Amino acid sequence: MTAPDTLKVACQQVAPRVGDLAYNRELGQRAIREAAALGAQVIVLPELVQSGYVFNDREEALALAETLDGPTLSLWKALAEELQVVIVGGFCERLDDQAVANSAALVEPEGRVTVYRKAHLWDREKLVFTVGEQPPPVVETRFGAIALMICYDLEFPEWVRLPALAGAALLCAPVNWPDGPRPAGERPAEMVRVQANAAVNRMFIAACDRCGDERGVAWVGGSLIVDADGYPLAGAMRNAQGQLLLAELPLADARHKHISRHNHVHLDRRPALY
Amino acid sequence: MTAPDTLKVACQQVAPRVGDLAYNRELGQRAIREAAALGAQVIVLPELVQSGYVFNDREEALALAETLDGPTLSLWKALAEELQVVIVGGFCERLDDQAVANSAALVEPEGRVTVYRKAHLWDREKLVFTVGEQPPPVVETRFGAIALMICYDLEFPEWVRLPALAGAALLCAPVNWPDGPRPAGERPAEMVRVQANAAVNRMFIAACDRCGDERGVAWVGGSLIVDADGYPLAGAMRNAQGQLLLAELPLADARHKHISRHNHVHLDRRPALY
Repeated sequence: MTAPDTLKVACQQVAPRVGDLAYNRELGQRAIREAAALGAQVIVLPELVQSGYVFNDREEALALAETLDGPTLSLWKALAEELQVVIVGGFCERLDDQAVANSAALVEPEGRVTVYRKAHLWDREKLVFTVGEQPPPVVETRFGAIALMICYDLEFPEWVRLPALAGAALLCAPVNWPDGPRPAGERPAEMVRVQANAAVNRMFIAACDRCGDERGVAWVGGSLIVDADGYPLAGAMRNAQGQLLLAELPLADARHKHISRHNHVHLDRRPALY
Repeated sequence: MTAPDTLKVACQQVAPRVGDLAYNRELGQRAIREAAALGAQVIVLPELVQSGYVFNDREEALALAETLDGPTLSLWKALAEELQVVIVGGFCERLDDQAVANSAALVEPEGRVTVYRKAHLWDREKLVFTVGEQPPPVVETRFGAIALMICYDLEFPEWVRLPALAGAALLCAPVNWPDGPRPAGERPAEMVRVQANAAVNRMFIAACDRCGDERGVAWVGGSLIVDADGYPLAGAMRNAQGQLLLAELPLADARHKHISRHNHVHLDRRPALY
């Protein structure tokens, strides 16, 4: 398959409501349709956009969880086919044994659904979710090779290396970044880490955060799309409100790993020493 | 040994002259004395500050190389003892077999000298230097546990992990960052990567760049000192001129790797999957 040279990606920073599955489905549908109408080919939604994030306990998460045949994934499949787009979003996944995972799905217009389960759990997620054991998938979509992971996973550069080495041109990352203190005028460290992950791999990254206070938790609102040099193409400034980011990615940049006549960001690694 | 709770570190961003060993020694001496007079306990100088950077060829580097008994390291040893400071700086090291390495030395007031040889070589350095084969050392100095690496090494997060996992509280990195294009208003990606490396390890980093055009090469002038959250304590803005950065580091921050009730930046790693 010959992938095209550019890809138009969108991040839809929206505010799901914890526990309101019907509202969140409709919120996601509107977000997907809006981005597709603006020409987006790949549309990224936040982590757990299907369910909301701040669960009271594991039982609440279990009650809100869905399988791949549930109403949210079924809607995303229908929209991906109708609009001929790739949809990436987070959902609370019901597993076989009455357990739940913090998952993300990549849904293609042809009907294929690829699921990733978060492998590095944040704070009380450890009390709720079964941790993922599989590396981030790299999916050869019609728009290029796309990987996915979730939020705190991004704080482990070893994890980001895996899909980059496996050929991903774009990493899509649904996130929910709880806000916290930082020095005035500084870009949030969560966004800085995305930049660095992109640069050391020459891989585009689209991280989609959420907004809207939920049970006392506020969010960075730090959605951003960065290029293969690690600089923002969209979302350079955090925005605690809802926002739609759009960027046209020159995908060939991610296939060129040379950064000088004698340097290649991946072949210069020395794995025997790590 | 009980390390103190704060450490005052300096980066002296100076402009060595390629090939002028006597000038560079005097430049280094003035920089060290100035920083020590301001209370710095650890003083970081740029990569290859002893020799300059832009060699015409391997033969020129060989002619400028010094051993640990050479005049530059002897001067640093004398100054470390006289001023009771730790000195970290880069030098062109003559190896046994007429080869040269791009090295950095950490010189303690007690007389111990620890040498590190750059393990990831940049561009034409591959034609000049013998590559290092040893991981970054972590030295238990009187001021705390200090690691060192050099410039392009910082672009490999796997490499930065090693001294962090080995207990370094501060990583000192002599660098020479060649300048290049970037979007207006953006902090250079070299500096962003330093921030991310610090944050994912909760380790302080002091990166000391150089200034002064050399044989047509200009430099980022991006010296910076970042805290354990990845935010700049000094050097937030690049500065193409000479500059002295000073910061007081609350070293206990680097001993506390917990970032939430249930998270620890190192114990959350999943090395079996990487």
